[in-house]
Amino acid sequence: MIIGIPKEVKTDEYRVGVTPSNVVVLLKDGHDVVVQSGAGDGSGFSDQVYLDVGAKIVSDAKSVYDKAEFIVKVKEPQPSEYELLNEKHTLFCYQHLAPLKELTSVLLEKKLCAIAYETVSIDGELPLLKPMSEIAGKIAPNVGAYHLSRYQGGNGVLISGAIGVKPANVLVIGAGNAGSNAAKIAVGMGADVTVINRSAPKLVELNKSLPSVKTVIYSEELLSKLLKDADIVISSVLIHGGASTPKLITKKMMQDMKDGSIIVDITID
Amino acid sequence: MIIGIPKEVKTDEYRVGVTPSNVVVLLKDGHDVVVQSGAGDGSGFSDQVYLDVGAKIVSDAKSVYDKAEFIVKVKEPQPSEYELLNEKHTLFCYQHLAPLKELTSVLLEKKLCAIAYETVSIDGELPLLKPMSEIAGKIAPNVGAYHLSRYQGGNGVLISGAIGVKPANVLVIGAGNAGSNAAKIAVGMGADVTVINRSAPKLVELNKSLPSVKTVIYSEELLSKLLKDADIVISSVLIHGGASTPKLITKKMMQDMKDGSIIVDITID
Amino acid sequence: MIIGIPKEVKTDEYRVGVTPSNVVVLLKDGHDVVVQSGAGDGSGFSDQVYLDVGAKIVSDAKSVYDKAEFIVKVKEPQPSEYELLNEKHTLFCYQHLAPLKELTSVLLEKKLCAIAYETVSIDGELPLLKPMSEIAGKIAPNVGAYHLSRYQGGNGVLISGAIGVKPANVLVIGAGNAGSNAAKIAVGMGADVTVINRSAPKLVELNKSLPSVKTVIYSEELLSKLLKDADIVISSVLIHGGASTPKLITKKMMQDMKDGSIIVDITID
Amino acid sequence: MIIGIPKEVKTDEYRVGVTPSNVVVLLKDGHDVVVQSGAGDGSGFSDQVYLDVGAKIVSDAKSVYDKAEFIVKVKEPQPSEYELLNEKHTLFCYQHLAPLKELTSVLLEKKLCAIAYETVSIDGELPLLKPMSEIAGKIAPNVGAYHLSRYQGGNGVLISGAIGVKPANVLVIGAGNAGSNAAKIAVGMGADVTVINRSAPKLVELNKSLPSVKTVIYSEELLSKLLKDADIVISSVLIHGGASTPKLITKKMMQDMKDGSIIVDITID
Amino acid sequence: MIIGIPKEVKTDEYRVGVTPSNVVVLLKDGHDVVVQSGAGDGSGFSDQVYLDVGAKIVSDAKSVYDKAEFIVKVKEPQPSEYELLNEKHTLFCYQHLAPLKELTSVLLEKKLCAIAYETVSIDGELPLLKPMSEIAGKIAPNVGAYHLSRYQGGNGVLISGAIGVKPANVLVIGAGNAGSNAAKIAVGMGADVTVINRSAPKLVELNKSLPSVKTVIYSEELLSKLLKDADIVISSVLIHGGASTPKLITKKMMQDMKDGSIIVDITID
Amino acid sequence: MIIGIPKEVKTDEYRVGVTPSNVVVLLKDGHDVVVQSGAGDGSGFSDQVYLDVGAKIVSDAKSVYDKAEFIVKVKEPQPSEYELLNEKHTLFCYQHLAPLKELTSVLLEKKLCAIAYETVSIDGELPLLKPMSEIAGKIAPNVGAYHLSRYQGGNGVLISGAIGVKPANVLVIGAGNAGSNAAKIAVGMGADVTVINRSAPKLVELNKSLPSVKTVIYSEELLSKLLKDADIVISSVLIHGGASTPKLITKKMMQDMKDGSIIVDITID
Repeated sequence: MIIGIPKEVKTDEYRVGVTPSNVVVLLKDGHDVVVQSGAGDGSGFSDQVYLDVGAKIVSDAKSVYDKAEFIVKVKEPQPSEYELLNEKHTLFCYQHLAPLKELTSVLLEKKLCAIAYETVSIDGELPLLKPMSEIAGKIAPNVGAYHLSRYQGGNGVLISGAIGVKPANVLVIGAGNAGSNAAKIAVGMGADVTVINRSAPKLVELNKSLPSVKTVIYSEELLSKLLKDADIVISSVLIHGGASTPKLITKKMMQDMKDGSIIVDITID
Repeated sequence: MIIGIPKEVKTDEYRVGVTPSNVVVLLKDGHDVVVQSGAGDGSGFSDQVYLDVGAKIVSDAKSVYDKAEFIVKVKEPQPSEYELLNEKHTLFCYQHLAPLKELTSVLLEKKLCAIAYETVSIDGELPLLKPMSEIAGKIAPNVGAYHLSRYQGGNGVLISGAIGVKPANVLVIGAGNAGSNAAKIAVGMGADVTVINRSAPKLVELNKSLPSVKTVIYSEELLSKLLKDADIVISSVLIHGGASTPKLITKKMMQDMKDGSIIVDITID
Repeated sequence: MIIGIPKEVKTDEYRVGVTPSNVVVLLKDGHDVVVQSGAGDGSGFSDQVYLDVGAKIVSDAKSVYDKAEFIVKVKEPQPSEYELLNEKHTLFCYQHLAPLKELTSVLLEKKLCAIAYETVSIDGELPLLKPMSEIAGKIAPNVGAYHLSRYQGGNGVLISGAIGVKPANVLVIGAGNAGSNAAKIAVGMGADVTVINRSAPKLVELNKSLPSVKTVIYSEELLSKLLKDADIVISSVLIHGGASTPKLITKKMMQDMKDGSIIVDITID
Repeated sequence: MIIGIPKEVKTDEYRVGVTPSNVVVLLKDGHDVVVQSGAGDGSGFSDQVYLDVGAKIVSDAKSVYDKAEFIVKVKEPQPSEYELLNEKHTLFCYQHLAPLKELTSVLLEKKLCAIAYETVSIDGELPLLKPMSEIAGKIAPNVGAYHLSRYQGGNGVLISGAIGVKPANVLVIGAGNAGSNAAKIAVGMGADVTVINRSAPKLVELNKSLPSVKTVIYSEELLSKLLKDADIVISSVLIHGGASTPKLITKKMMQDMKDGSIIVDITID
Repeated sequence: MIIGIPKEVKTDEYRVGVTPSNVVVLLKDGHDVVVQSGAGDGSGFSDQVYLDVGAKIVSDAKSVYDKAEFIVKVKEPQPSEYELLNEKHTLFCYQHLAPLKELTSVLLEKKLCAIAYETVSIDGELPLLKPMSEIAGKIAPNVGAYHLSRYQGGNGVLISGAIGVKPANVLVIGAGNAGSNAAKIAVGMGADVTVINRSAPKLVELNKSLPSVKTVIYSEELLSKLLKDADIVISSVLIHGGASTPKLITKKMMQDMKDGSIIVDITID
Repeated sequence: MIIGIPKEVKTDEYRVGVTPSNVVVLLKDGHDVVVQSGAGDGSGFSDQVYLDVGAKIVSDAKSVYDKAEFIVKVKEPQPSEYELLNEKHTLFCYQHLAPLKELTSVLLEKKLCAIAYETVSIDGELPLLKPMSEIAGKIAPNVGAYHLSRYQGGNGVLISGAIGVKPANVLVIGAGNAGSNAAKIAVGMGADVTVINRSAPKLVELNKSLPSVKTVIYSEELLSKLLKDADIVISSVLIHGGASTPKLITKKMMQDMKDGSIIVDITID
């Protein structure tokens, strides 16, 4: 099979669909790999590195899509990419179709085979979503803490507190992979962390490695109350299967939050 | 010198002035040791054990005080013991004279030499008070947690919290030896612990081994505010030199505390 | 359906079958809720709070049982409650029928439907027993430590030890939810903790978050030996399915224990 | 004495010289306190709060400097403030005169008494610098991690790493109060942290509470080598007594650093 | 059934097939137990101890094999034991037949029933291999550190490092029971530990209790690179089912390692 | 001044008096440095490295001693080196004269100036002994654990224990730099650690970073009792000022120890 790796076109997307190490694996399995020139630049892989491991470099996206049957990329196709897609393609990337009606229509019309990263499931886990959730969870407290400073317009609370000064209240919504990683880093930064989750088992698990985290079983009433005291809110709730993320924080709840508090939303869509 | 060890007479005092191991040391140094029968019972040392290491056993307190020049005991003399004291004695025990005017007069009248445990100082430390402070600090959270239960008339908050339930707020006043040990055990029990102290250096030190403890520099205003939220208050403030403990918690502050919250006072007098 | 919440009648039972927040959920689902006046007092919920969320308040237990088809309470029916029960009721509460022959007969005679909290099972877990086990486990070391003091008739060992003084030996029987929570708090209090369990997997799990705990695979011989050295024993063994708790500690073993050591039994019946 | 609190004029300076709580203390001691309108805004204290505790509010800086003998502010006088100063003033604020020749001349000409926060010393410690060092140290890893992202132009390394991905190398120069706090938060964020310091004792101390931190005794050669591998460098070296900070990182060393690595300089001047 | 426990004949094998406590269990179940004299010596159990619990002692191996139908021992049969085996035996011990062709032939010829410890599986776990893996994993860093010293011919790196000196790089191959225990002890000794494993889930689990360990998803390229920097390599990879261990470290990789680095191989065969 | 660095002659001594980095410092200060060929081999510094930084290489020890006035080496002079010393030398190395009468006489006769590393003191600390104590302390548990195995003739106890098996009892005598480092690594390896020390303050300090370590105030009686239960004893007691180490473990105590237990003596002489 000919596998094509186009360069990502979405702003601030630095990732690439296949790394040179994995090109080696694909070639070993008997496939050909076509890489758009510059596809690996954002991740630190030059065209030369891809050439060295045996890939072919082509100059533009159109050449990739024309030659390849199996397209591996990161982000869902952007409008500028729609015309490149056709029936012979199998498209393998994140797709988040739930909120993207236009893209859904395009894919249906093209009659191609589209496999969404976020729905690939092994033993009840989502192996292509999990690393992204981990990273999003780990970045979230950092981003929240940065924007909480007065210089960025936040309420000026130092996430770690200081001698004689209380740390920030960090509220993490969801105790899954993203939420528990967010809680871990927030604790490491010295915050006073509360995690709210729909049910107990994940909180029990989280409590083992993070004993100082306060745990709350979700109810609208409790979430509403916790939001009022939070300096940083990290929202990480996800529904398996690619459905839209539930909207747990109402407009009213947001209005009741403290001035200068920060919401970091790491749910996807 | 003849050293005398009377049996303690104060209720619920189970300690003894000198253990058999230390009798050995005193005898080696050329002293004689006279022990009142039963003096060691509360600490698990029978008369026979004292006889075995070379002490003399006498049947009553009067015989100890008559024979010995140097009296080693634990608690300050009780009224029933006043008549046993006389000018030839050196009295070595806790004395806490600040609040005990009558005892102070008695000691002055007797013209004996009285050395108070609580004023013995080596390198700025109080070696005879420090172990007691450590023990008092370590017991305090346990006593507070026990009495916080509904069965004991407390507000029913579980010190350690549970999955979905916040832990108790424990406020420790003072970051000295007693206070920092109290904080350590309270953290170990899962409580949400705040320590308030007059100045920063001891809080800095405490923060190194107990990073999840919140620290506050004392002001009347802040203490007053923290007391309103506390489930357990552990008061451990001590003035060096045997002076009376400062009264930091006013009647007004106590009235403003939550129903069923517990104050554990481990200051001495 | 009409759901009835009677006031608990057992001594020292402060809980209530349904909280006001959950009344809201039941009403949303189309049920009616009848609450006995004072039912929530022990848990801090006044009649007014129940009225505010939409429940009906009735003055006595008989009115609850007469009106309601589905009775939600905490403790198994007490003799004074037997006459209130009848065939139309579904009774949802802890029941512990194994040791309670009379209650078992009453329930059979009444021909009502009785669902015991302790037998409700989801994915092999016991969601209505688990929080109680967690709480019982967390309280146990506190109760043991309190009663270990000389003032309470214990052997006077300080659970946390002190500089120069060894901590208490705490033996936890069972590494389930109750036992592992007991071990966690005992470690937090500074004790020297050993956990004995029938099989290895739960000990492996426990060892990950509590690496300083000693683990022992159960045999009668080893239990017998460990009991001799224990200051506090926390017995937490449970058989799933509502059966009677196995009796692991024999009279002989108890006679061989140290004077003034404490057994805290957190098994249920 | 009349104590004056002007509003800070330096950009992004949100602090105020005296809080309302401390106004209370000053008034109790018999002083008068004059506050410039808006002085407390950046710290969340309205004019009304100052009025309520007994301060006088004046509308402009000139009125503060004219009325008051003792000026308490945060930052060193800015050029726009020079003309407000005169001989009768005692000026109490940070001054950092080492690099500020013009300000030094102004102060000498005015013949006023100037006490620099950064030189106030108690028992060999710098109590007015220490909290600022702690805060600067705690913020530094957050700022470094934020700017290390690709979106900010950094090298894209995630400070905490991820499963299968190594964390960032964080090099902290100096093991004083700022440096050790920086190391603590960087460790909490999951970084691989090395601390380089001129001598061993502070590294020994730091190693006790942060055992996973690598320690290095400073030499130019070693610093140079460590810089090459660092993703984030936190420079925290300070000379006591208000002198200029030593320049440890040469232009050559900076050129040899990895592309997209970040230096966070928390030394003062 | 008659159960026979021969003395182990392999050099440096100190274990015994059945302990006296377990003899008790077997007798209770109605079996007879025949023990070769001296079988328990290496484990601290004298013949007398076996006699006391009711076993029969026989003087030589032949008597055990002649009398018993069910043979419980530790190591696979050694050539000197082949002639003792016959068709009536069920042989229960470690067997590692994959690399032992001769033994495999012998067992097939004898037509006896042979059950290998290493293939006994309960709920997907290997209960007779797991404790051995745990022990091997825990010993490995100790052995590696010992042989890393200059006195033993190693490269002289101190595993724990020191103030101003970096710790050893320990690379653990495999994140199973052996590997994760090796990582745990290596971290406890102060090493800089990296664990490489074929897939993510075990690394996620390991990361919870050992947050400072670096994790790597296996590729030949990455292993090769990590080996070059390692001071101690602990190889713990196992294939379930008794197959031969995969050879991950090539001769080329070994030649590229640092002089004086140590490989500790705790795979079995 | 001419500074000479001879090659060490004592067996198994791999260190060198001055590293190439420090030669740079000495040259900058205006001294000349003469290095014996091969002096740095054991520490990984070739003659070429010393040449590169500006030292002179000479072929034998005699040339070093003839040319240099200031001799920097590691170990005390060995008999073969006596004749190289003379009145013009200042000798800077470890000397441990207390047990070495002959060397003491030689040094006195030569009338040279000898400065012992172990007596150099700054602020009450011993900066040239401290790193050696740290290293000795960190190695000790490793050496003890290694020799505790049955293969080495020890009692076969695994220092870290295992699931169902208690860890080794490690007794550390002395809570100074060596002792506390030994305790730290022993705890990291999973041992059950007790530290005995003459007085409380160092135990208090140690308890902060190693809360699970049991502490004991030294008495002959208690030491004697603890030795009976120990699997590994690490003896680290040192008297400041170069005096002989006190002999705390008597022959009788050693006879009462368990068979196969290990004593690791890291005191110096």
